[in-house]
Amino acid sequence: MPNDHASTLICDLARSFYALGWVSGTGGGICIRDGEHVLVAPSGVQKERMQPDHIFTIALDGAVVDRPADATLRPSECSSLFLKAINLRAAGAVIHSHSMYAMAATLLFEKEFSISHLEMIKGIHGMNYGDTLVVPIIENTARECDLADALEDAILRYPSTFAVLVRRHGVYVWGADWIRAKTHAECYEYLFRAAVEMRRMGIPTRMEGA
Amino acid sequence: MPNDHASTLICDLARSFYALGWVSGTGGGICIRDGEHVLVAPSGVQKERMQPDHIFTIALDGAVVDRPADATLRPSECSSLFLKAINLRAAGAVIHSHSMYAMAATLLFEKEFSISHLEMIKGIHGMNYGDTLVVPIIENTARECDLADALEDAILRYPSTFAVLVRRHGVYVWGADWIRAKTHAECYEYLFRAAVEMRRMGIPTRMEGA
Amino acid sequence: MPNDHASTLICDLARSFYALGWVSGTGGGICIRDGEHVLVAPSGVQKERMQPDHIFTIALDGAVVDRPADATLRPSECSSLFLKAINLRAAGAVIHSHSMYAMAATLLFEKEFSISHLEMIKGIHGMNYGDTLVVPIIENTARECDLADALEDAILRYPSTFAVLVRRHGVYVWGADWIRAKTHAECYEYLFRAAVEMRRMGIPTRMEGA
Amino acid sequence: MPNDHASTLICDLARSFYALGWVSGTGGGICIRDGEHVLVAPSGVQKERMQPDHIFTIALDGAVVDRPADATLRPSECSSLFLKAINLRAAGAVIHSHSMYAMAATLLFEKEFSISHLEMIKGIHGMNYGDTLVVPIIENTARECDLADALEDAILRYPSTFAVLVRRHGVYVWGADWIRAKTHAECYEYLFRAAVEMRRMGIPTRMEGA
Repeated sequence: MPNDHASTLICDLARSFYALGWVSGTGGGICIRDGEHVLVAPSGVQKERMQPDHIFTIALDGAVVDRPADATLRPSECSSLFLKAINLRAAGAVIHSHSMYAMAATLLFEKEFSISHLEMIKGIHGMNYGDTLVVPIIENTARECDLADALEDAILRYPSTFAVLVRRHGVYVWGADWIRAKTHAECYEYLFRAAVEMRRMGIPTRMEGA
Repeated sequence: MPNDHASTLICDLARSFYALGWVSGTGGGICIRDGEHVLVAPSGVQKERMQPDHIFTIALDGAVVDRPADATLRPSECSSLFLKAINLRAAGAVIHSHSMYAMAATLLFEKEFSISHLEMIKGIHGMNYGDTLVVPIIENTARECDLADALEDAILRYPSTFAVLVRRHGVYVWGADWIRAKTHAECYEYLFRAAVEMRRMGIPTRMEGA
Repeated sequence: MPNDHASTLICDLARSFYALGWVSGTGGGICIRDGEHVLVAPSGVQKERMQPDHIFTIALDGAVVDRPADATLRPSECSSLFLKAINLRAAGAVIHSHSMYAMAATLLFEKEFSISHLEMIKGIHGMNYGDTLVVPIIENTARECDLADALEDAILRYPSTFAVLVRRHGVYVWGADWIRAKTHAECYEYLFRAAVEMRRMGIPTRMEGA
Repeated sequence: MPNDHASTLICDLARSFYALGWVSGTGGGICIRDGEHVLVAPSGVQKERMQPDHIFTIALDGAVVDRPADATLRPSECSSLFLKAINLRAAGAVIHSHSMYAMAATLLFEKEFSISHLEMIKGIHGMNYGDTLVVPIIENTARECDLADALEDAILRYPSTFAVLVRRHGVYVWGADWIRAKTHAECYEYLFRAAVEMRRMGIPTRMEGA
């Protein structure tokens, strides 16, 4: 039997992310860890219209533990990617956003997104105002599940990041629990947008010496 | 007697499309197929304030089957255009959006809108990440019903498209049912906006070799 | 005794206009004609938090017929301007918007805003797709009531306009009733924004020969 | 016992500011003065999900008078900054916004933001249309509480300002009561955005002679 509270929360957050433009066109998603299980949305559904009884419960190895009555539903294609952040970084929740600004940031930076000296950087766990925030960018693949190896590699190479950008696609963001994952997602969103605006204004995103 | 559920859904979707900027100024609209009938909104009304008993039921040849009690209402001027997608492409729902980004895309492209290598392209039925998505652009006419021939021609010449742009006007988008039509509309909207932003950043919308 | 229905409608529309960014900072407003009376909001209040019992009823010459119990309230400073459109153009409702795009349009055009060949132009009463829509621009004044003479002059010189822009300020828009005033306001808003975007893209807002 | 009405109002305003993009990522905030006390939100919480029983009551010297039952909560780090505007300028409410436009304005101006000849300037207490509105910009610090001295200095040097910008961070805005603080915040937000847009269009924000 799935965790009713967390299932309701996933649906509530998904509506809010839809309003922010993060999960339109059935893309994007969110998962929340519940002990040794993870609650994930179905694949390819309208994220802003999900109901708690549409949510899957999977184990930490990806095995389906509990599934919706609707037999046509499959667990989100992001599940294997969500599990990378959960298993490698002890994430309590992972958000996958198709935000236009996250996507645009991957068009303006090569291997890494980097920005420094913005107050919002302090919203990322462990970061201070003068630090340079770096987010690795991995190349997109034809199938979402094929991103798993590159995501794992990026997570291992950037042990302090809480996000990985995917070129021409979007971003995966996580945190120790759903509140910290959501806070991180909002801060990264702001920073991606700030970088796009700063480039337009001809202002470097990273200060000399940072 | 019209389909109450679908009529309510049309009103609900119209409110949501108004919030997205797709149907302001009474423009734009949506129809949903119900068996051998099609439910359509009235012409020239505030789309975000429609009620289910304002909805017309028309046959697949456009004949009015059931109409609102309010004798001043006429079926949407888009009806003949909606029927093209329904009859030629077996669409279960058609959305007509006056989105600023759809309109702007028609100012930046000549005969066809084209874009490749964006994850959101996968949201269009049959398309993969590396494919080039093409949307035909037809010229606008003084009266909306005069678009029907050009729309039919574009649909026949582009058998895999689920959208036709109208120069300096907007876009018609469809899908096999209302969920797929709405998902398509959100994905196209994202792609039109992405193209406008990419042009601003000097980034080509279509990759070499695609 | 004021018209309860229209008072409620004014408050409802004001909340909606606030969400659109037209009446932030207590600016902007709306009036609705009710026979020989006009219902107007108070001056300098938060437009999105007005209640029906805050609304004034004034006569067509501006005399206050009915006022809120709250003695600190005064009728909107726009009242004399609203009455110009009502008395000279038989407007049934007038909307005053501080929209950023309306203001920006006054920075990009000299004496007149003009645009042609956009579908949304058809949303303005009497206009066709190929027509050039012209909106006069008057200069702003230190006090809002001092705009009245220039507004009257513009209304008389442009007998087919349903809007007058005010430089570095915003726009007054009207229609035969509240629905047509609101529809006009949405269409003009779209056209002002389109003009700003077209200028950014280097595309003329008015076609040769139009 | 805290003021229930004001606590509810803080939560209501925080939800509204979240929708405007002013307090995402747990940043930003608001306080409201209640006689000799000040009601402030907790530090580092999701501002749009606060409940009235999360609000702190502090004295004018910053001492905590009443605190939420949840022992993990601490008063907002902005508290010492809020108290500067309250004690030095008799503010009845102070809003701290992380608005993208406020931040961007600090990238485009050096020591002072300045703008003239916009109607929205009249929304700032004591200002007229033709006046030049000036907002001091202070440099950001690694810790928010370290801003207090620079904020005090700016308040003393600019006795007619109701806002202080913080470089690469955001803005503090106040007013005689919560309505005037919120009205000021909306007007400043509009003016920061207008300045960013005017710079993009190559239009000076301050007129010659102003």
